[in-house]
Amino acid sequence: MKKNICIVITNRANFARMKSLLIEVKKSRKLNLQIILSGSALSHKFGQLEKELKKNKLLATAKSYFLIEGGDPISQAKSTSLAISEFATIFSKIKPDVVVTVGDRFETIATAISSAYLNIPLAHLQGGEVSGNLDEMVRHSITKLASYHFTTTKKSSERVIKLGEEKKRVFFSGCPGMDLLEYVKNKNINKKFLENLSYTGKKFLFDKKFILVINHPVSTESKKKNLFNINILLKTLSKMNFHKIMFWPNPDAHNDIISSQMRIFKEKYKKDDFTFIINASPEDYAILMSNASCLVGNSSSFIREGSQLGKPALLLGNRQNKREVGENVIYGDYNPNNIIKKIQFQINKKKYKKQNIYGKGSSGKFIAKILEKIKPSIKKQITY
Amino acid sequence: MKKNICIVITNRANFARMKSLLIEVKKSRKLNLQIILSGSALSHKFGQLEKELKKNKLLATAKSYFLIEGGDPISQAKSTSLAISEFATIFSKIKPDVVVTVGDRFETIATAISSAYLNIPLAHLQGGEVSGNLDEMVRHSITKLASYHFTTTKKSSERVIKLGEEKKRVFFSGCPGMDLLEYVKNKNINKKFLENLSYTGKKFLFDKKFILVINHPVSTESKKKNLFNINILLKTLSKMNFHKIMFWPNPDAHNDIISSQMRIFKEKYKKDDFTFIINASPEDYAILMSNASCLVGNSSSFIREGSQLGKPALLLGNRQNKREVGENVIYGDYNPNNIIKKIQFQINKKKYKKQNIYGKGSSGKFIAKILEKIKPSIKKQITY
Amino acid sequence: MKKNICIVITNRANFARMKSLLIEVKKSRKLNLQIILSGSALSHKFGQLEKELKKNKLLATAKSYFLIEGGDPISQAKSTSLAISEFATIFSKIKPDVVVTVGDRFETIATAISSAYLNIPLAHLQGGEVSGNLDEMVRHSITKLASYHFTTTKKSSERVIKLGEEKKRVFFSGCPGMDLLEYVKNKNINKKFLENLSYTGKKFLFDKKFILVINHPVSTESKKKNLFNINILLKTLSKMNFHKIMFWPNPDAHNDIISSQMRIFKEKYKKDDFTFIINASPEDYAILMSNASCLVGNSSSFIREGSQLGKPALLLGNRQNKREVGENVIYGDYNPNNIIKKIQFQINKKKYKKQNIYGKGSSGKFIAKILEKIKPSIKKQITY
Amino acid sequence: MKKNICIVITNRANFARMKSLLIEVKKSRKLNLQIILSGSALSHKFGQLEKELKKNKLLATAKSYFLIEGGDPISQAKSTSLAISEFATIFSKIKPDVVVTVGDRFETIATAISSAYLNIPLAHLQGGEVSGNLDEMVRHSITKLASYHFTTTKKSSERVIKLGEEKKRVFFSGCPGMDLLEYVKNKNINKKFLENLSYTGKKFLFDKKFILVINHPVSTESKKKNLFNINILLKTLSKMNFHKIMFWPNPDAHNDIISSQMRIFKEKYKKDDFTFIINASPEDYAILMSNASCLVGNSSSFIREGSQLGKPALLLGNRQNKREVGENVIYGDYNPNNIIKKIQFQINKKKYKKQNIYGKGSSGKFIAKILEKIKPSIKKQITY
Repeated sequence: MKKNICIVITNRANFARMKSLLIEVKKSRKLNLQIILSGSALSHKFGQLEKELKKNKLLATAKSYFLIEGGDPISQAKSTSLAISEFATIFSKIKPDVVVTVGDRFETIATAISSAYLNIPLAHLQGGEVSGNLDEMVRHSITKLASYHFTTTKKSSERVIKLGEEKKRVFFSGCPGMDLLEYVKNKNINKKFLENLSYTGKKFLFDKKFILVINHPVSTESKKKNLFNINILLKTLSKMNFHKIMFWPNPDAHNDIISSQMRIFKEKYKKDDFTFIINASPEDYAILMSNASCLVGNSSSFIREGSQLGKPALLLGNRQNKREVGENVIYGDYNPNNIIKKIQFQINKKKYKKQNIYGKGSSGKFIAKILEKIKPSIKKQITY
Repeated sequence: MKKNICIVITNRANFARMKSLLIEVKKSRKLNLQIILSGSALSHKFGQLEKELKKNKLLATAKSYFLIEGGDPISQAKSTSLAISEFATIFSKIKPDVVVTVGDRFETIATAISSAYLNIPLAHLQGGEVSGNLDEMVRHSITKLASYHFTTTKKSSERVIKLGEEKKRVFFSGCPGMDLLEYVKNKNINKKFLENLSYTGKKFLFDKKFILVINHPVSTESKKKNLFNINILLKTLSKMNFHKIMFWPNPDAHNDIISSQMRIFKEKYKKDDFTFIINASPEDYAILMSNASCLVGNSSSFIREGSQLGKPALLLGNRQNKREVGENVIYGDYNPNNIIKKIQFQINKKKYKKQNIYGKGSSGKFIAKILEKIKPSIKKQITY
Repeated sequence: MKKNICIVITNRANFARMKSLLIEVKKSRKLNLQIILSGSALSHKFGQLEKELKKNKLLATAKSYFLIEGGDPISQAKSTSLAISEFATIFSKIKPDVVVTVGDRFETIATAISSAYLNIPLAHLQGGEVSGNLDEMVRHSITKLASYHFTTTKKSSERVIKLGEEKKRVFFSGCPGMDLLEYVKNKNINKKFLENLSYTGKKFLFDKKFILVINHPVSTESKKKNLFNINILLKTLSKMNFHKIMFWPNPDAHNDIISSQMRIFKEKYKKDDFTFIINASPEDYAILMSNASCLVGNSSSFIREGSQLGKPALLLGNRQNKREVGENVIYGDYNPNNIIKKIQFQINKKKYKKQNIYGKGSSGKFIAKILEKIKPSIKKQITY
Repeated sequence: MKKNICIVITNRANFARMKSLLIEVKKSRKLNLQIILSGSALSHKFGQLEKELKKNKLLATAKSYFLIEGGDPISQAKSTSLAISEFATIFSKIKPDVVVTVGDRFETIATAISSAYLNIPLAHLQGGEVSGNLDEMVRHSITKLASYHFTTTKKSSERVIKLGEEKKRVFFSGCPGMDLLEYVKNKNINKKFLENLSYTGKKFLFDKKFILVINHPVSTESKKKNLFNINILLKTLSKMNFHKIMFWPNPDAHNDIISSQMRIFKEKYKKDDFTFIINASPEDYAILMSNASCLVGNSSSFIREGSQLGKPALLLGNRQNKREVGENVIYGDYNPNNIIKKIQFQINKKKYKKQNIYGKGSSGKFIAKILEKIKPSIKKQITY
């Protein structure tokens, strides 16, 4: 009998992080892949993932809508609530042997709680990381509900063990998201690259240097602060003489305030040197990163993929404050002069040494092998 | 300005555990008590708490229904879901400075998640304990979401610190439930005692020895196993020559199976030496415990209050498997001969040395003092 | 291709009303039966239906828990809410061609709303009846969402048509619940009858006359009024010299208050002439009715089945105030003298003329035939 | 004691329809206005209403998020579910004497169900209208739950009475939305008009003729059909030599498909003769309508306000198929030639006779007066 491995995809980032794992589980003769497609992964606004799954011959076993509009903390709490109810229904129907989830978002802890109360062992990716935010609290909380841990760094593995998890349940796998960098190695970007992407703003032919910008909301900061920061960033970037390729923010609390400022900026100034990406496949995103002159904002990919690519990155604010970072990363505040100076500094660096902190490119395969081997059981006790 | 201290009561056990704290917070000039009355605390079936609160001049600031009937794991997950949504609405309305919760049940983690996503610091009682069950996973998971920890034992405090919590946020307060034992000290039980209680079965005049029996469901075991165990227990107890005072089980998953077996047993045999208690005030419960010859079943009060009273207890099955226990506790299986022998052994012991493992009787006051002093803030980071 | 006919069972009464229909749809070569088992039909407290379905070789296609404990109006509204969400998930999974529902309860309107928003035609049983209560408002509201109407009386059909429904969508089928009376015709009750039923209180050998009593909560009246009424009824009945066979109330709002008063009465007085039925199969219920000397309380079955059996009935209060009744029914208040006199009057009558107001015993077959014939479509417009 | 009148606003259209009523209830000495701001009225995407309320010195008594992202029928059903739960919590907290709701959307029936189960009389605006869609079924269903009816046309009043409602509970008030037309009478549009509006696309100085376009999703038609229609419409309009002022669609199911096609069209062609309005105050909307040369699409305002203004309108598809319309309306399909010809025809007409089918401009005041007079009670019974 094949083991049912249920992988929960709740947004585009999830998918990117788990794509290689999805493919490996699909290939395995000992595992039966179950995919739950849910949350913003089903939303038009954030780019529907279903088509992209199909391209990879992956089919959703179940779909679930639970994202409540609003972008306020209360709607985030209510989305968590709904997600638990939805996952409980689905899990009890499709009966997974292991549920796999990634990260530290509200959908992740919703997944963890549903599987806990249905007595299904949970495999958690990205446990043990430090980030100094609500996300971090949630991440460690999920660790304590999970029965298997696949960590992205060595230090994270050590931290998970310190949290009282049994060693035999903790695996330093690296991040499966890194596996895609192997695929894009040596892929150049051509002037038609944008045509396959969903974007607004200026078309860009990749005929000059560009900066890749991602500024997600910080849900533990006030609306006002989020609004202030995005405006500083847009204004500062518009003074800089490079092309800017900027992504819309992900659907965390306060996402609405950032989106709307970006929209206003875009419509008001109609800048020729800004291109706004609605969504890109993980591979295209990797290609963009590997061809950018500098990464600016607060995406964790700048740290993970960034370190492996040795790509200069400026991390703004404290969203990624406490992360384990490679040499490619410097930090900065939302301060115009500061931003300009630091971007300039990083662009001049051109390239940093590549570092495999977050994995070597075979994490998906590694995790699938472990899932094949284990006899799934729920961990019941702390080690101390 | 007084600090808003929001104490969440979700069932009778909660209330008993926090009664002295409720009273101390009410008394404080620096704190404003907010009570949320919810879940089975509102249910007729489990004895409405509102009247009892009123007797103590405590008023519910908000009420919330979230308990889904069924008694299956899936209805437990769905109750968790609903509780999160309800608490989010209430918290955003009454704006607590600190939310206080106790234990390891699904309502507790629901409270923790709602307060986390609304950026309200959580004070958690009973963190750091070990029990070796789904409850334990949930308990540690809540610890990682809480910003203040009031532990019942020294060892629990150490464990919470090992879990990466900042020392200054961890307090060994003891369990406020113990405070009530002070109150009942030297209170004898008289033949009219039962008249104030809600009970069915035989009236008992406390004119001979009695055993106090509580057998809660074990939600991580199968329905079948729960059914098997309660039947063994009832059959074995009915052979023993003492009066049995037995409580109905609390509303965890599989509660229905145990209740219905007890009901069938009660109706079928109409035994003269069984009294079934529907509910009792915490004080009356303490009096019952302190006058029993032996405590039998799987209630955690047998361990907590039991150790402070030095009362012989037989813990059955593995619900309280891994708890820190005093000398008063011995363990046993659901095996007829075994149960009879061990109860006999404990009754012959008469009394054990009193041990203050779970507090000395002033925990409520201690916690209220800390809540007065702190400037509430959300912990953001692990200590390692 | 067979048409998917999804029949939603939410409580025991539903099942009794639709049993013959379930069997006929199961038998049909043109229809594929889908059963949703949900709400109190899954609850131990109200007697699990699953076993009873299995005895009839009927299998649940899906199960759904949505009943929130509390018994207050707000928990009823919240149960409605949850039921809509659950049915939406299930309908979108099992894709019915027609959804079938019966009556006027919150689960019924929840079913209607879910099917409406998923564009699935709804067949509604018991539309067009008048009862003068919240139930009536809800019933007509459901009619306006339904695409097919199977009414229990001729007058109800006329009323549904007056409500603007197309004639070709309205069928006077009679109530399938009546079909079971054919089955029990001439079945006598023997002294072992009770042994197969789930009951508490005194065993009864059917060796003397008995009254059948059902007193459901009236959710539009206050808790206080419900409490007052049940106490009057219990006290009055206990003075009467017949055996009383009494059912526990169904799970409407205020059910808890009635249950708990019955429990207190039962425990306190331990009357020898009261038997309390927890649940009975529809057939056994029919046998009980047909052997009772008088029917007392507020169950609609006293009107429906009662008229076909010509069984003397005393309807109390205004729960069934405005119903279309046969000669067998007289009305009364919750007034001790009045109750005694009227029961006496009815018992002396012995038997009334049998009237087929609510159907002749082949409604299930009739409805199944219609479902075979129709090409399911959603009605979009009022006729005027 | 003032009567609590709770007016539920769930989106921008609600607000426009009830603005004059809000103001009149606020002014009344006998009424206490309670506003619930909820659903898309709270959403950034659809333009937050809170600021606009404040401008009119109106304050939200409660806010509620219940809109689930997705735009699929199932997410609409789930939003209904959530809205019921939210409204139940709020109603039981703020205890309205009458709840007021308008229209036929899922939020409206959610409001109706919550108030029914909490025994609060519902006043419903826009009952009795015919439209031949899911909306119509829902509208009549709400009528059967409502206790007071304020209809927009005489014929609607007659229809509500035919539906079995008591005459004394049915009032032909006209639509309060019409009241705003009084306000804008003789207001010309100037070239700075757009500056106060939230828009994207080309700035327009109102220096030439323009068409006002609104194309809402039709939730009972397939995604494919909705997509096909919006594309035909955009393509056809882009061939026409007038300026087009087009609104984004409202948040019904399939809204996402229409929004995304509009976004693609806008970004791809960057047409100089298209202006896209994100949101406008009801008054500004009225000014736009009264200055347009022709109204094109499927908004019900083209029928209501349109008739009173005598403004030529082309209604496309069957969303408003069966409405009671004035002479200003002609109907058409989503067919390029047909659209062009009919718009041309209407523009040539210039102006139709003004007709007061939907009210004369004092509906808000009229309704407030009735609410002052009534002694709120729940209707229990059908009139036949």
